[in-house]
Amino acid sequence: MLNRVRSAVAHLVSSGGAPPPRPKSPDLPNSTSAPPAAPPQAPRSPPTRAGSGTAAPAKTVEARASFSRPTFLQLSPGGLRRADDHAGRAVQSPPDTGRRLPWSTGYAEVINAGKSRHNEDQACCEVVYVEGRRSVSGAPREPSRGQGLCFYYWGLFDGHAGGRAAEMASRLLHRHIREQLKDLVEILQDPSPPPLCLPSTPGAPGSSDSSHLVGPQSCWSSQKEVTHESLVVGAIENAFQLMDEQMARERRGHQVEGGCCALVVVYLLGKVAIIVRNGEIIPMSREFTPETERQRLQTLGFLKPELLGGEFTHLEFPRRVQPKELGQRMLYRDQNMTGWAYKKIELEDLRFPLVCGEGKKARMMATIGVTRGLGDHNLRVCSSTLPIKPFLSSFPEVRVYDLTQYEHCPDDVLVLGTDGLWDVTSDCEVAATVDRVLSAYEPNDPSRYTALAQALVLGARGTPRDRGWRLPNNKLGSGDDISVFVIPLGGPGSYS
Amino acid sequence: MLNRVRSAVAHLVSSGGAPPPRPKSPDLPNSTSAPPAAPPQAPRSPPTRAGSGTAAPAKTVEARASFSRPTFLQLSPGGLRRADDHAGRAVQSPPDTGRRLPWSTGYAEVINAGKSRHNEDQACCEVVYVEGRRSVSGAPREPSRGQGLCFYYWGLFDGHAGGRAAEMASRLLHRHIREQLKDLVEILQDPSPPPLCLPSTPGAPGSSDSSHLVGPQSCWSSQKEVTHESLVVGAIENAFQLMDEQMARERRGHQVEGGCCALVVVYLLGKVAIIVRNGEIIPMSREFTPETERQRLQTLGFLKPELLGGEFTHLEFPRRVQPKELGQRMLYRDQNMTGWAYKKIELEDLRFPLVCGEGKKARMMATIGVTRGLGDHNLRVCSSTLPIKPFLSSFPEVRVYDLTQYEHCPDDVLVLGTDGLWDVTSDCEVAATVDRVLSAYEPNDPSRYTALAQALVLGARGTPRDRGWRLPNNKLGSGDDISVFVIPLGGPGSYS
Repeated sequence: MLNRVRSAVAHLVSSGGAPPPRPKSPDLPNSTSAPPAAPPQAPRSPPTRAGSGTAAPAKTVEARASFSRPTFLQLSPGGLRRADDHAGRAVQSPPDTGRRLPWSTGYAEVINAGKSRHNEDQACCEVVYVEGRRSVSGAPREPSRGQGLCFYYWGLFDGHAGGRAAEMASRLLHRHIREQLKDLVEILQDPSPPPLCLPSTPGAPGSSDSSHLVGPQSCWSSQKEVTHESLVVGAIENAFQLMDEQMARERRGHQVEGGCCALVVVYLLGKVAIIVRNGEIIPMSREFTPETERQRLQTLGFLKPELLGGEFTHLEFPRRVQPKELGQRMLYRDQNMTGWAYKKIELEDLRFPLVCGEGKKARMMATIGVTRGLGDHNLRVCSSTLPIKPFLSSFPEVRVYDLTQYEHCPDDVLVLGTDGLWDVTSDCEVAATVDRVLSAYEPNDPSRYTALAQALVLGARGTPRDRGWRLPNNKLGSGDDISVFVIPLGGPGSYS
Repeated sequence: MLNRVRSAVAHLVSSGGAPPPRPKSPDLPNSTSAPPAAPPQAPRSPPTRAGSGTAAPAKTVEARASFSRPTFLQLSPGGLRRADDHAGRAVQSPPDTGRRLPWSTGYAEVINAGKSRHNEDQACCEVVYVEGRRSVSGAPREPSRGQGLCFYYWGLFDGHAGGRAAEMASRLLHRHIREQLKDLVEILQDPSPPPLCLPSTPGAPGSSDSSHLVGPQSCWSSQKEVTHESLVVGAIENAFQLMDEQMARERRGHQVEGGCCALVVVYLLGKVAIIVRNGEIIPMSREFTPETERQRLQTLGFLKPELLGGEFTHLEFPRRVQPKELGQRMLYRDQNMTGWAYKKIELEDLRFPLVCGEGKKARMMATIGVTRGLGDHNLRVCSSTLPIKPFLSSFPEVRVYDLTQYEHCPDDVLVLGTDGLWDVTSDCEVAATVDRVLSAYEPNDPSRYTALAQALVLGARGTPRDRGWRLPNNKLGSGDDISVFVIPLGGPGSYS
């Protein structure tokens, strides 16, 4: 497994059903202390160290509530003011003179055009070292137990109703992932199948082997094959849940509102939003909206009608039903249908629909346009006490891209962007910009990826003209915060 | 719309959440009377008429309970006995001398090798005429209201725990589809967008137009575009529900057990399992099993734990958890996860898992290997009173293939088969047989499609050898009932 490079993209942009209690991690990351995870042994290629993450550590949530930008931007107080200027909207990138981001990653961002006081996007780029759990006795690990693991980590967080959730996630999510991976350090380095059962106290795995089976039922005559890859996927999935639960706990005290969407890349043991590879576009993530998640939302509303509080109907109608239309027949679809059919309008159908609207105007409970994310624990339906959170899912969709299956050239890149980029830029336009910018630089010039990130941000922002920010085609540019990572898939050299 | 040929494949092989009450159709098909829908005006190409469907009409459910084969096989009493012979397993096709099946469709079937007393597959191939609803006054329709619609229909039904559900579905499902389409006859022939709302009494549609909108919410500032195609999809979806509800009603009296999977093709206004087109394989359906529907089943069990009756856990484990492992940590995944993670084993985890096993041995509630279907209203967990039906879905997955988008040659076919075919035959093997058999016949010889269906059934059955039915590679052939339709995509001539 160590000989293969694998990565996972966990994409959570805006899942139903309250999640079950997660297994608690014995030493959860703490939002009020400790610096980001430092890699005690630097990975092979760039001289990266910890601290390229976001915001200064060792502060409480309240202390950092004002305004912060990723520390890897190395902004001075004056630079921070310029980054916060809605009129100038200067594009920010890490300084040429500073330490490069891990893996020669390019990054650029720009603040919104006045949509919110501060930039509600946040970003994190880290190399994280995972040490295996201590043995049962609590004694330091023996050298024979093998080395720890390193993973590369990129995260973009698009906050709404405030920047706090995005800031917290950018600072802590990778540490939750690290915690979840601690159990797996030895397992992932062992080519044999993962043990199905571990002893009760964290320690040496595999003491309870998986070979004995019970049950006369034929469906238990064999055991499931569980791959190493699916363990990493499960670790990332659980980390998102634990991050969201931590937000719930810490928010209760601080009355912090808001939430965020998250787009995260984990490069571990050699696998990895859109990939542009040899001109070909490979989408690695998709949006979670009331439209794309309609059936999940409707199913939850149908099975748990109390969550609709008598205010909403789980049925979808192509437009609002009017009282005078009672008894007529209107097109509708329920949680199981992909087509439309007519139904006789009854009193209940006059309630507001759980899901309504199209495109950027699609809304869940007439309130929110994203259906997966972290935070939003206090979000209620407008002028109501009905909570939105049960319908929001903090579960990511994890996709795995095996970097070893293709020999990547220096122009093959993974582009991560927040809504500010994708609202006004198509996949094809991104691919064209990739081609245009990268071909203007030498293949071995590492600054080309920062230049590309800047070009993508500029291309989505536009220039101030005709009372607004306009693109060359005179359409409106994005007035949202825009943040972009460009990750060269050639990566840190060899994947072996 | 009439100028385009469209078809839909509704595939329901082995969905969660009890369905909401469907809008009742004023004149539901009746299982105890009335012949199959007859096309008063024959469609343009082959001289097809009604009556090519299954089993003689005008009999009660009890009367037909013994044993029946599709009427289009035109079996004499002796022929019926031979078709029912598990030892000889003679392949049955419609007689050469008889009337051809609509659209030169090929068909072949063979009984199982002793798995059940009778052949529990059923088939239906019909041309169905849909007359629009009568006007409000109840007077006959005026000629100016336009003509009715015809659709071609093929259905394969794979019964389990008896053949009654399959037999009932083969006789009635297309009539439920016809009922659902009655509302749409005029709408589908009108190129303008469908009316969103119809007057309360069935009659002339569109009297209540869709232009007025209400609501200050931005998500209601526009109305949904609803396509004609999605209306047909919705009609098929509702027809499946109504079929299942009819089974529930009629079973209550007759104590009929069992259920069936359904694979149905509807060709309407010119769109249409696997398509072999120019050697290319296009799968048009997928299996619904405890494995492929794990997350749907787990979500229902999680949101409605009472359905698990304290006997099952909604969590999946890679093997059965043993009491002595309490307190240890076992791999698991819940309704949201695609990966696996470790959790501490608690008492509840010792319950039997909702979903277990792999491949053909995968079972839901340790009882059934299919998760969508019609019927099974009385099915209970083995040695328990817990009902299975809430987890079974009668919702089909409808896929639309536009026949007009490609100029099909005589060798392009759609192959529908029951489990008996697909358990032992891969898509590629089917494609190879298509190529081999069709190339041995003149392109305009209509008997080639029957020959192909027979070859596919024979290839899956094998020959009796070494105490079993064996394939040329000496592997076991299918001991299940095998039924195959071969539909030439060149179709009834022109689609225009």
